[in-house]
Amino acid sequence: MEKVGKFHFITEEYLLDFRGRVTIPMIGNYLIHAASNHAATRGFGFSDMNEKHTAWVLSRLAIEIMRYPERSEKITLYTWIDEVGKLFTSRCFELADESGRSIGFARSIWAAIDMETRRPTLLDIEALSVYLSDRPCPIERPGKIAPVEGKSEAIPYQIKYSDIDINGHLNSIKYMEHLLDLFDLELFREKEISRFEIAYQSEGKYGMPLTLHKGETEADKYNLAICHEGKAICRAAATWKL
Amino acid sequence: MEKVGKFHFITEEYLLDFRGRVTIPMIGNYLIHAASNHAATRGFGFSDMNEKHTAWVLSRLAIEIMRYPERSEKITLYTWIDEVGKLFTSRCFELADESGRSIGFARSIWAAIDMETRRPTLLDIEALSVYLSDRPCPIERPGKIAPVEGKSEAIPYQIKYSDIDINGHLNSIKYMEHLLDLFDLELFREKEISRFEIAYQSEGKYGMPLTLHKGETEADKYNLAICHEGKAICRAAATWKL
Repeated sequence: MEKVGKFHFITEEYLLDFRGRVTIPMIGNYLIHAASNHAATRGFGFSDMNEKHTAWVLSRLAIEIMRYPERSEKITLYTWIDEVGKLFTSRCFELADESGRSIGFARSIWAAIDMETRRPTLLDIEALSVYLSDRPCPIERPGKIAPVEGKSEAIPYQIKYSDIDINGHLNSIKYMEHLLDLFDLELFREKEISRFEIAYQSEGKYGMPLTLHKGETEADKYNLAICHEGKAICRAAATWKL
Repeated sequence: MEKVGKFHFITEEYLLDFRGRVTIPMIGNYLIHAASNHAATRGFGFSDMNEKHTAWVLSRLAIEIMRYPERSEKITLYTWIDEVGKLFTSRCFELADESGRSIGFARSIWAAIDMETRRPTLLDIEALSVYLSDRPCPIERPGKIAPVEGKSEAIPYQIKYSDIDINGHLNSIKYMEHLLDLFDLELFREKEISRFEIAYQSEGKYGMPLTLHKGETEADKYNLAICHEGKAICRAAATWKL
């Protein structure tokens, strides 16, 4: 089995945003599709984890896009594991267009949790290391994001049916969707997100009253947060460019 | 070219709801994928319409599901045109599981609008009629849905970036998502939607303040509406069963 997985997508016009471009949450879906299938065909997918009463949980994700795919574009997504530790594994992604040119990269950090206790479990370092690849991923790792709550307006949001996933928790992609919705449409018209980064801190549950926060830390750089009872369950950061 | 189009999907675990089942909006995405591709390969797809400065608009949709697909299920979706008129065309769908057994049907009504005036245009009856099929679709057509606004609580909602599609309007699938979110999670735990029907009346735009409405008309039957300034831009109905 190849270390690097390769997946093909064709963008669908009815899933594009108002500019006719693929959205960050949609790219998130592509990444998760690729990660799930890469893992499943190598013996550590959803079902394999499930048998051991564990589940993969996305802990951090950073996406950098040089050019957003447009209507009916054929894109190829490469994914590989670049680090395995006791509790976390790091998975990289490269997005290429039809001509083979890189249009984006992503880095993700995953933990395996016990399905009953929801606590992290030890990873099978030996088994995972077989697939370690040193293919380059030239973007910064997801890092620490400063708090923005308290310094910014708190937009209320309550978790709904459509927000929750098979584990009964706020879907990883929905966090992104709600945070991006904090930006005014004008900004999407004028600029583009060159880097989006998110750190999942605790699990959102149905009916949970949340507050959404956004603050500009320097020109075109924003920190974001989703809080429950004043405590962040997720932090994110977005960098915009012309 | 075959009259009936055939499309294959594998359900993805990270897109399932908390019960591990495919959602109605996700089925809506499958239907639109099949409709778009069936049309595109027969010369009346998104790009062909675009060249004539027209676009397909979904007018009505009824979905009946006997059994919801679950995790990693292979499903097949058949689609065909069953009626062509001056202004509307009717397209049917059948959803089958891996053993070939029917698990759902859908009926949809489409109009072609002029992209500048947003008004309906005459359909090319001759060209579309080549693909007419009399394959049976044993569910009721989408019909008239009684108003429910005024008799029910008005839940406010404002259209956001994630809600709008390539035409700059509220995405057809997002209408469904926001309406289904009106139901309490308990109902999804106990029962299942056997029929969901929606009629799109006018286009939602960014920032538009909306109200969402839900009323039970008889046991396990609900009418739904999305209104702007008191006028429905969309009506829907849902039937639940054990």
